[in-house]
Amino acid sequence: MKKGHQVTMKEIAKKLGVSVSTISRALKDSPELHPETKRKIVEMAKEMNYQPNLLAQSLRISRTKTLGVIVPEITSHFFASCISGIQDFANTRGYNIMICQSNESIDLEMANIKTLVSSQVDALLISLSRETNHYEHLLDLYNREIPFLLFDRVNEDIPVSKVTFNDVGGAYEVTKHLLENGCKKVMYVSGPEDLYISKKRKEGYMQALEDFGVEFDPKMVKISNLTTEGNIKIGQEIAEMKERPDGVFCMIDPVALDILAYWKEKGIRVPQDMALAGFTNNPSSAVVEPSLTTVAQPGYEMGKLAVTHLLDQLDGIASDDPISIVLDTTLLPRKSTEK
Amino acid sequence: MKKGHQVTMKEIAKKLGVSVSTISRALKDSPELHPETKRKIVEMAKEMNYQPNLLAQSLRISRTKTLGVIVPEITSHFFASCISGIQDFANTRGYNIMICQSNESIDLEMANIKTLVSSQVDALLISLSRETNHYEHLLDLYNREIPFLLFDRVNEDIPVSKVTFNDVGGAYEVTKHLLENGCKKVMYVSGPEDLYISKKRKEGYMQALEDFGVEFDPKMVKISNLTTEGNIKIGQEIAEMKERPDGVFCMIDPVALDILAYWKEKGIRVPQDMALAGFTNNPSSAVVEPSLTTVAQPGYEMGKLAVTHLLDQLDGIASDDPISIVLDTTLLPRKSTEK
Repeated sequence: MKKGHQVTMKEIAKKLGVSVSTISRALKDSPELHPETKRKIVEMAKEMNYQPNLLAQSLRISRTKTLGVIVPEITSHFFASCISGIQDFANTRGYNIMICQSNESIDLEMANIKTLVSSQVDALLISLSRETNHYEHLLDLYNREIPFLLFDRVNEDIPVSKVTFNDVGGAYEVTKHLLENGCKKVMYVSGPEDLYISKKRKEGYMQALEDFGVEFDPKMVKISNLTTEGNIKIGQEIAEMKERPDGVFCMIDPVALDILAYWKEKGIRVPQDMALAGFTNNPSSAVVEPSLTTVAQPGYEMGKLAVTHLLDQLDGIASDDPISIVLDTTLLPRKSTEK
Repeated sequence: MKKGHQVTMKEIAKKLGVSVSTISRALKDSPELHPETKRKIVEMAKEMNYQPNLLAQSLRISRTKTLGVIVPEITSHFFASCISGIQDFANTRGYNIMICQSNESIDLEMANIKTLVSSQVDALLISLSRETNHYEHLLDLYNREIPFLLFDRVNEDIPVSKVTFNDVGGAYEVTKHLLENGCKKVMYVSGPEDLYISKKRKEGYMQALEDFGVEFDPKMVKISNLTTEGNIKIGQEIAEMKERPDGVFCMIDPVALDILAYWKEKGIRVPQDMALAGFTNNPSSAVVEPSLTTVAQPGYEMGKLAVTHLLDQLDGIASDDPISIVLDTTLLPRKSTEK
């Protein structure tokens, strides 16, 4: 062995014919490995005069075993499910989590980051606020080498790992479902156009129309501001159209639920007069009558994958190179689209 | 003025004919006061040679302006509303909040307290886990003079301020509503008997029976373990009773919603065959058919009152002596009890 050469975990791994992550776990005395395996690895490391990276070591020692989580809103069932997934799998690995809510405000998002960093969390999991349109606070975190990851509401330009849903695919599935169930004129009720999910779900809607040879009609897209009043206004506009759609796909369940309540009041029958579908699978969607066809986004699964990847990075099991994890959604056909 | 006598805020307040809290706010340069008022108070304080309490001052200076919040579960719409109320009114006063979830586990509750205290939060707002049956961790906080307050799930023996709902009153109102709507045999479906709310809501149920001269029948109380399966089992037991009740009051909405779904499947009509009511006003209760009569607990209001009182104590506006704040609930009559 060359003098002055610093032995790496990779070299030990090669020598023993095991993976680098096994070496890493053995040197951290992980309970997941067989004691005999650990003993062999530790002996080999000694024999090869392995010197752990002291900087990384000192960082590891000063860990608080706490992760910070920032979500736009805790009252959302979806984000609450993400938090549960994050918490369960953080706890399994001996970490606790502290959660902050940005209330969809970029100022509060910045304040939350400051609060959590002052509390010396080891890393952060962040889902961006609706308002976040500049990213200095995130690039600052990155430059200060504070590990973090983005989930659900992400920005493509931040060089960290991201966990998102296949929004295009989900919207494609629900539009396809409406078309296959006999709808000829499917409308898309979108949220504000600059929202990431507004765009992605429209993309899926358009793709399905194209694949089914349906010409796109701009009158078949409406935009709600996502307030209850805004949603009801759209429901009213649709009711008053001369040529109504026969199927309506709403970007998120609350829009569909508000429209459904308004139509029921006005005697418009779902699905007989118009089929209706949402996206996100809010708890109310299953109990409303008719039950609402929607797309399930497994929030718990997203939280689990996000925290597991982040902790793998912290523990040196996963590479620090950012990756993109894309989760599939599931169409849940219910009575609101049965024609 | 006596030599060696330490002038208090109370004396300044008396001299100027204003309240102690106005003096306190002026000396903290609160933006809520008119600059002229502040100037007068500061001058009077100087003139009277007022010396602020140095210990309190140093504590104030070292503040992190962060509060810790511990709730049993974030996926509960009720606790999410509490958090929103806490956050909005903490932010108004320049504080940020960090939230931890105990997942109904006493071990995690203790770990959460440790995490938040290590993060040097200025004070804590805690709602106890279902499992919490000993209180050393809370008495330890108390002995270390770390300010905290209990809300919703409280223990009477901890000498700190508490914010709760009038559970007895809410259960009384809903039972009375069923009796007034013509029910002769009202059943109470409880959660596990050692739960605080199981007991309190039973108390209200019993009181209403007594006031209406209805004799208590032990067969008219059933106990669910609060899982979906457990709730459905109760729904089935009721359906199979020889002498069914004509009105059923469930301790919490999810129990009523599960029973309703089961009965609908079996062709039992609500309210015609049996009236049904819940408690907590979950979002699903308004959209289910028939809509569910329930009792609203204003979680946002609870959070607001809790954090405001705690910050008033921190700021010396409210006394440190523990108080008990009891919030009223509101009966929401809906179709499930219309006879």
